[in-house]
Amino acid sequence: MDAPRAGALSRKISETTVHRLSLYLRILEEVGRAGTDTVSSEELAERAGTTAAQVRKDLSLFGSFGKRGLGYAVPQLALELREILGLDRPWRVALVGAGRIGSALFEYPGFRRRGFEVVAVLDADRNKHGARLGGVEVQGTADLEQVLRARGVDIVILAVPAEAVPEVLDRVVAAGVRGILNFAPTQLRVPPDVAVKDVNMVMELEALSFALSQSLSRRA
Amino acid sequence: MDAPRAGALSRKISETTVHRLSLYLRILEEVGRAGTDTVSSEELAERAGTTAAQVRKDLSLFGSFGKRGLGYAVPQLALELREILGLDRPWRVALVGAGRIGSALFEYPGFRRRGFEVVAVLDADRNKHGARLGGVEVQGTADLEQVLRARGVDIVILAVPAEAVPEVLDRVVAAGVRGILNFAPTQLRVPPDVAVKDVNMVMELEALSFALSQSLSRRA
Repeated sequence: MDAPRAGALSRKISETTVHRLSLYLRILEEVGRAGTDTVSSEELAERAGTTAAQVRKDLSLFGSFGKRGLGYAVPQLALELREILGLDRPWRVALVGAGRIGSALFEYPGFRRRGFEVVAVLDADRNKHGARLGGVEVQGTADLEQVLRARGVDIVILAVPAEAVPEVLDRVVAAGVRGILNFAPTQLRVPPDVAVKDVNMVMELEALSFALSQSLSRRA
Repeated sequence: MDAPRAGALSRKISETTVHRLSLYLRILEEVGRAGTDTVSSEELAERAGTTAAQVRKDLSLFGSFGKRGLGYAVPQLALELREILGLDRPWRVALVGAGRIGSALFEYPGFRRRGFEVVAVLDADRNKHGARLGGVEVQGTADLEQVLRARGVDIVILAVPAEAVPEVLDRVVAAGVRGILNFAPTQLRVPPDVAVKDVNMVMELEALSFALSQSLSRRA
């Protein structure tokens, strides 16, 4: 691949672009399972709900893939996307907060296949200790920092109640964790070298509410 | 309020802007509970992790709020934001798919307070029928369209397995539902008058993976 490497360009790559890359990867895997070897930017775009120009633009950020008139080789492009997304290596994940929200993650079939390995599950609630979640025993949070360090955790899934967030967050950051998937309906304050992504169902519902009321007011 | 009304501007308003409006509303509610009457754009910005200029720009899309040098009146701005987001009316919501992912929603404390009223829970699994989730009895999907219509459902939370999505989605759209919160790791194809928001934990993890591997390659 005659490519500018990903790292150099990171600042220019928006979150929505990264989400589209995830989506392209999913589509390529689907198409691959169906036995297709090559796919055009038009086909990728149609399945991803975008335009062929957008697909080409997104991919060109990372190098030149595909051949004019021939489209993209499905397995190769999937491999490249996995590498671009950092999915060509395993990530060690800890779930902090073993309630319904956090444990819902284990229902996503794609979770493990993507190389996210849950190496610890911690919860402050003694009643949950000793239970198993996704094959891992739930333990207490008293030794949170030590557990995260000892197990080499890269990413914490933070699914504790809002009032517990400040203390737990400080401890997670102190343990050297550099990636947090945040389920709390709170803006996390973290040092600049810590990446945070939020999953907030209520905010998405509010965005739907906004879209629906806009469309009602247009019709009125 | 001497405002251009929201509807007219809807096309220009990005998803990230709408998310910030949700966040401002949360912050105003917090600040209000703490007994504060006015807040400056600087304070709002700091808590929201953005700049004062961004706060002013976001709000100016919907009118002129606040007074120069005095800041924003907390309860009034909260009221306006609720109206802008369409949260000044109740939305009738049905959960389709009563697994862990869908039912996790009921753990969000803000869900009901925001005016989202769950009026139906449907699941294809007979073993779940008759159980209660968030105070609503789980029923089968045989009469999905009729149930959605009869209960006047505005928004469907789609939390069925990926393979069930195409059929269920067709039926939801046929029932006249115009808003879908999608938990399936699939790009939904819907008519242009149907709004979709996705909640995809694995995609957010992939975005974290991307961010972490970019920062590793910068350090290398």
